[in-house]
Amino acid sequence: MTWVPGAAGTPYGAHNLPYGVFRHDGDQRRIGVRIGDSLLDLDGAEAAGLVLAGGALRAPTLNPFLALGRPQWNAVRTRLTELLTDQAHRAAVEPLLLPLADVELVLPFEVGDYVDFYSSEEHASNVGRIFRPDEAPLLPNWKHLPIGYHGRGGTVVVSGTPVIRPSGQRATPDGPVFGPSTRLDIEAEVGFVVGVPSEQGAPVPVDRFADHVFGVVLVNDWSARDLQAWEYRPLGPFLAKSFATSVSPWVVPLDALADAWVPAPEQDPPVLPYLRDIPHLGLDLRLEVDWNGTVVSRPPFAGMYWTPPQQLAHLTVNGASVRTGDLFASGTVSGPARAQTGSFLELTWGGAEAVALDDGTKRTFLEDGDTVTITATAPGPDGVTVGLGTVRGTIFPTGAPHR
Amino acid sequence: MTWVPGAAGTPYGAHNLPYGVFRHDGDQRRIGVRIGDSLLDLDGAEAAGLVLAGGALRAPTLNPFLALGRPQWNAVRTRLTELLTDQAHRAAVEPLLLPLADVELVLPFEVGDYVDFYSSEEHASNVGRIFRPDEAPLLPNWKHLPIGYHGRGGTVVVSGTPVIRPSGQRATPDGPVFGPSTRLDIEAEVGFVVGVPSEQGAPVPVDRFADHVFGVVLVNDWSARDLQAWEYRPLGPFLAKSFATSVSPWVVPLDALADAWVPAPEQDPPVLPYLRDIPHLGLDLRLEVDWNGTVVSRPPFAGMYWTPPQQLAHLTVNGASVRTGDLFASGTVSGPARAQTGSFLELTWGGAEAVALDDGTKRTFLEDGDTVTITATAPGPDGVTVGLGTVRGTIFPTGAPHR
Repeated sequence: MTWVPGAAGTPYGAHNLPYGVFRHDGDQRRIGVRIGDSLLDLDGAEAAGLVLAGGALRAPTLNPFLALGRPQWNAVRTRLTELLTDQAHRAAVEPLLLPLADVELVLPFEVGDYVDFYSSEEHASNVGRIFRPDEAPLLPNWKHLPIGYHGRGGTVVVSGTPVIRPSGQRATPDGPVFGPSTRLDIEAEVGFVVGVPSEQGAPVPVDRFADHVFGVVLVNDWSARDLQAWEYRPLGPFLAKSFATSVSPWVVPLDALADAWVPAPEQDPPVLPYLRDIPHLGLDLRLEVDWNGTVVSRPPFAGMYWTPPQQLAHLTVNGASVRTGDLFASGTVSGPARAQTGSFLELTWGGAEAVALDDGTKRTFLEDGDTVTITATAPGPDGVTVGLGTVRGTIFPTGAPHR
Repeated sequence: MTWVPGAAGTPYGAHNLPYGVFRHDGDQRRIGVRIGDSLLDLDGAEAAGLVLAGGALRAPTLNPFLALGRPQWNAVRTRLTELLTDQAHRAAVEPLLLPLADVELVLPFEVGDYVDFYSSEEHASNVGRIFRPDEAPLLPNWKHLPIGYHGRGGTVVVSGTPVIRPSGQRATPDGPVFGPSTRLDIEAEVGFVVGVPSEQGAPVPVDRFADHVFGVVLVNDWSARDLQAWEYRPLGPFLAKSFATSVSPWVVPLDALADAWVPAPEQDPPVLPYLRDIPHLGLDLRLEVDWNGTVVSRPPFAGMYWTPPQQLAHLTVNGASVRTGDLFASGTVSGPARAQTGSFLELTWGGAEAVALDDGTKRTFLEDGDTVTITATAPGPDGVTVGLGTVRGTIFPTGAPHR
């Protein structure tokens, strides 16, 4: 149990230890690890010789640490657990703790390629019903491979970054018009952060997932549905998504989620051999979507049809390599109930059924000034939960002063 | 006129001066500029004080130099022109020249986001006719916006890198099967390299193109048509493209192409205001596609419907930012004649009409061992041409030892 006051038994006890990057008093970016409502300055800790990672913890991003690989990740985690649980280290470590309230959390890693999957059967079926009402809700390929596409790595931003309403073209009966999106939406997702790169031409099999993936962030893949509907044929979404993708500031190590693996939904028809993961497990992450103070949805990640190891195996089976800092997200997480859907497109059924918020207002899509906050927890050891942090964004009008 | 022996009057005279990154005798990566069949070592030149760029020319990639911006790009270009044309500098500069035959050219810049457009009306129409024979060849959105999507930045490789045939799923009447692609294709394209970044939320208007874009590379966007046909609905191409994208090793500065701007095809219907570029100009780049020693196609870039400034304006109009090292490619360059098409899909009309090569063999799609070489020239000053280098790749079987 951690000696850090108030941390034991919380979702950010010594069983979690997520990594982030922070600034304090306008200083340089430094790596930290969260414990309770504090942060341990790992730059300071490595400088003091309290933990050793060949200098990787003294970088301004997590990338050098992510590149080290699982044996080193484990060694650092073991050491941090010692430092934060053994009273013998308290005198040396306590001066390196900072209250979270005193720091600014920044994007924790430099993003390489960003891939977005589409792995919730409920979400894909709902979108099919809304956009292609005359066809079968799932396209013929959907149960054979985890559909995915590349998003824009350069516009991934940390939680709290203002989201400026995108402008673009949308279709009208009189032809396309240009202007601010009128159907701005969220996508509540879970993202996986690649640590160890792979080589071009060498696929990563399903059973090597944990050799390459370091951990997990929450993702809000903001989406302009009106832009998307007009632009997406035949090459997929582009400007409808590329203006901003928000991620939570804490990368939760896979190690912290060891108790969260649960059987994933049975796959029928059977998948091709390169996608067979035995045991076939997903992660029991429980998301919560808050819109201006009202919890409007609780998407269950455990029900995702395609698992993270299957996604990585598919992504690389053609010989594509992964790099340190690559991010692949699950796609919108939606459960079978309306109040389990991870997009407002589904929650309001294409905008047809407004949702009532606790402040007395109603919403279909996002209005300027709206704030969306996505959080998640997972089961941890001994009945505690593991917190996955928060990804929050507030909508600013088109043309608002940018950052 | 340059004093470098044999360089004057060639496509790589002092009017061109493309930048690349090389290794010599297994040394560190260094920046060089091509002149004739030689390369001037710019790391050595900046170290010797012959040219000054704040150390940016001493980096192992072009990125720091690309980030400097047009005034600095111009100053360096002016200085290099002096050094390579004024006999007074010959004694100091000549020791820094290396024969191209003695160096290994590597990827010249670290690629950020890679976007691929779809801007040839002939290509888009041909693909429509082949894949959707019962519909109008162009989709309704095509003439209103430059259709594009994100590709994989991490698998962009330099010319000469082996291309390993990708495996993946393809549809058969009995369901999908997994195996090496049977319809491996090329896409002959022109790529634009971003130097100066833009801010999120701040679109780059059409008339600011030259403030952000440094120069041009040739691109071969290798494509597995069988994988693509099965996977692309509804989110676009993914594994069919992500295994490899080859680029030429020389980044030709926009300044070297000043004489190559020509009126672009008239756009009807008129485009929305944010896409109006006045004058509406494209680049007269003349591509040549060689398949195992036979020139099979001469795609004309001047006929592209959407111009590079329109592409950049569209890419950023939603507030998406660009980073130093971002690459956006034109999409397959195809002219109206069959022997002007930039993909083998079009050249062989979906594989139905084999092409005869000079070695007596016939081809529809790529076979293992095949080599494709794309080159291009542009009109330069005083009747000389500007060479855009070469992008070459040879196909290796699936499972071949990777790099």
